[in-house]
Amino acid sequence: MPDDLLRTRQRIASGQTSAAAELEKAIAAAGAPNAARAFTRTLFDEARAALRGIDPARQPLAGLAVSVKDLFDLAGQATLAGSTVLAGAPKAAADCTAVARLKAAGGVVVGRSNMTEFAFSGVGVNPHYGTPAAWDGRHDQPPAGAAAPPRIPGGSSSGAAVSVAIGAALIGLGSDTGGSIRIPAALNGIVGFKNTARLVPTDGALPLSTTLDTVCAMTRSVRDAIAVHEVLAARTVVRSSAPPSAYRLAVANTGMQDALEPAVARAFERTLSRLAAAGARIEHIALAEIADAAALSAGGGFSAVESYAWHRRLLEQRAADYDPRVAMRIWRGATIAAYEYVELMQSRARWIAAMEAALQRFDAVLSPTVPITAPPIASVAPARGTGTAQDAALDAEFFRVNALLLRNTSVVNLLDGCAISIPCHLPDELPMGLMIWHAALHDDMVLAVAQQAEAALLNR
Amino acid sequence: MPDDLLRTRQRIASGQTSAAAELEKAIAAAGAPNAARAFTRTLFDEARAALRGIDPARQPLAGLAVSVKDLFDLAGQATLAGSTVLAGAPKAAADCTAVARLKAAGGVVVGRSNMTEFAFSGVGVNPHYGTPAAWDGRHDQPPAGAAAPPRIPGGSSSGAAVSVAIGAALIGLGSDTGGSIRIPAALNGIVGFKNTARLVPTDGALPLSTTLDTVCAMTRSVRDAIAVHEVLAARTVVRSSAPPSAYRLAVANTGMQDALEPAVARAFERTLSRLAAAGARIEHIALAEIADAAALSAGGGFSAVESYAWHRRLLEQRAADYDPRVAMRIWRGATIAAYEYVELMQSRARWIAAMEAALQRFDAVLSPTVPITAPPIASVAPARGTGTAQDAALDAEFFRVNALLLRNTSVVNLLDGCAISIPCHLPDELPMGLMIWHAALHDDMVLAVAQQAEAALLNR
Repeated sequence: MPDDLLRTRQRIASGQTSAAAELEKAIAAAGAPNAARAFTRTLFDEARAALRGIDPARQPLAGLAVSVKDLFDLAGQATLAGSTVLAGAPKAAADCTAVARLKAAGGVVVGRSNMTEFAFSGVGVNPHYGTPAAWDGRHDQPPAGAAAPPRIPGGSSSGAAVSVAIGAALIGLGSDTGGSIRIPAALNGIVGFKNTARLVPTDGALPLSTTLDTVCAMTRSVRDAIAVHEVLAARTVVRSSAPPSAYRLAVANTGMQDALEPAVARAFERTLSRLAAAGARIEHIALAEIADAAALSAGGGFSAVESYAWHRRLLEQRAADYDPRVAMRIWRGATIAAYEYVELMQSRARWIAAMEAALQRFDAVLSPTVPITAPPIASVAPARGTGTAQDAALDAEFFRVNALLLRNTSVVNLLDGCAISIPCHLPDELPMGLMIWHAALHDDMVLAVAQQAEAALLNR
Repeated sequence: MPDDLLRTRQRIASGQTSAAAELEKAIAAAGAPNAARAFTRTLFDEARAALRGIDPARQPLAGLAVSVKDLFDLAGQATLAGSTVLAGAPKAAADCTAVARLKAAGGVVVGRSNMTEFAFSGVGVNPHYGTPAAWDGRHDQPPAGAAAPPRIPGGSSSGAAVSVAIGAALIGLGSDTGGSIRIPAALNGIVGFKNTARLVPTDGALPLSTTLDTVCAMTRSVRDAIAVHEVLAARTVVRSSAPPSAYRLAVANTGMQDALEPAVARAFERTLSRLAAAGARIEHIALAEIADAAALSAGGGFSAVESYAWHRRLLEQRAADYDPRVAMRIWRGATIAAYEYVELMQSRARWIAAMEAALQRFDAVLSPTVPITAPPIASVAPARGTGTAQDAALDAEFFRVNALLLRNTSVVNLLDGCAISIPCHLPDELPMGLMIWHAALHDDMVLAVAQQAEAALLNR
């Protein structure tokens, strides 16, 4: 496992390395071939300049490299969100709050990371800026050997995950509306923590769903996730040193275990065994309420309505410049009535109450983050728009894969909950993630369980 | 001024009267001719039975009479909300939270108070249960002399106001979505306090607008309003004994002073003079943001969308059984798109931020609660549905009056703010109200200012 943020900070503090040397390592990694398409724009000169104001002794992020998903405002730059349609947009007057907090803590922005256009989809394919290939951040190598075909990075925070996996950043700032932090974290062998949405301000982030959007980050370890969340949320996480046996853990059987790829099923069972061997008390529960989550997202749900509200004027003028797979999903919001949206909010509130009641006696729930490993990019590549059967097949496969990728993670967004994905694969396996989750404001407990789970999985 | 709740409680405590005697007085008042149509259902036997469990020495509401607007759940009764269309609705399994809190504090429910059907409109006319005539609770007599024609009580909490004005209740539990507590309070010469919506649970109250609905009450004094709010909100109000000169008060000139009936203009100017004479520092400000409030409610706004979501199935089956003036307003929600509703929420949030910035340097704002005095019921009576020119004229006058009644009060609901209406009329005038208001969670300050204003106006 490559060094994480906290280890790097210790090495800087002890004089083994310097913030400047670490930044140059990140910049070199960001320029390497495997970083291709991870950034839509690099900011190396700006990063070097910013480093001069940093005091590693006083600032928790110690001058370390941060990548910023393209949907966050950086002062003086237009925010394109992985699109070309916003190329003429006004430059942001100020950094968004999340970036401002990272910078104030000593983080240095090395570039804007690539993403699915407007953060739609969990696949990570981008027809405008290309698709960065997944990397295995846990094992610091391409996923399961260099001979494999380039695989999707997951999305929508695709470049954020790759930037952290390849060492171009120690923090990948992103957003998670249906799984956009956790899916790429799982497919790139790193850690992705989606905090309860309300804990981190979303201002200055281009919205997908104002109801579900969560500003959060990817890191190389759970302890890094805690450190970065404390900066983003401007709060202190309550830490626990309780052993695994202290926690009441549930495995949710409904929906989340369906149609698992055999490799994922094996990894998940192995993970549960390891946690049990470490003392964890794990109970399998039906959690039948999960079956009702799909109906809440039918027709596009919150994202369709709220993205259409944001995009509709732009879409009317520039539809041809959108990724057709994205435009199609935004258009669904045009025909939804206000009363249906109100009913959706009310149904969601009732569903959250039912889920919270069902989860009340547990400290966290365990699920596979995604039910599949990353397929080759070629299998879901952008259609060429020629209307051929091949295009139709690519689109169909894209939407099939997308639905599978989002299936488990999006339940937590609907729940207004919190979740972390940690790696649970072996060196010869493709990256896979264990998702540890609960309802709103259980963040500290989820992080505490994740630290124990990470330790149990690393000590194998 | 008749005794208020706190004075009555003192008289019970000192042995001058008893809770039982006071309850019989309230029951007698509720049965008097001027109470006609104030209640849709009286609960005298239940009230007498409930009194047996009361301990005036320990319970702040001391067994005193409460009227409950017909939209609140009372265990074992169907909640009709001033309609006939819900006559077959299931009986409520439990009291709503607001009623439960009043009962736990010693309040005794003497009846369900009449209201505008489904709480639509500020006029107070009800075609099913009749329209209670306004009374002057401040002067304990019909408004400005018995010879006057019966005048509208204001709405939607029409019966709640009349019940308090005539002495049938010391607390009128109601709701305020656009002014439904403050308008009838003003037209019946009593006090109506609309707290910040989130401070009192709305569960068990039939919704009009889930965004704007506020559960609150009418009383005979500001100190009673504080005492009752503390019960409803289960919190303690921070009291102040600062003199009027301690407060920075604003008069909002935009919109709220337009088209005042001469009597209201005179009363408001006189009120400002009295407050200034008591030492208040009053500044006239433009508050141009108020002009933007009307656009937020155009097309029916939150109430149209959210009431349609609640009513649409019932309305499809039973439209003919609704008050046509109500059905017409609910139907407006059918054609509003979800994206428009999302834009409305976002526009409202921006508008609130602008208003809060403009009000930041003031402790409270002063406005006339309503720009007119109560017109005769006959001028806005329910049309007979015969399609005659007379019907059309009645409907037109109804909607003109309704818009005027709601104009000033509804600004505070859009603001998510708090406001109190206190009487500001002389004995020979029709009842009129002074509205003291501010943004969300300024409740305690608004109440403190109101206590000083009430004292200044009573010491004339």
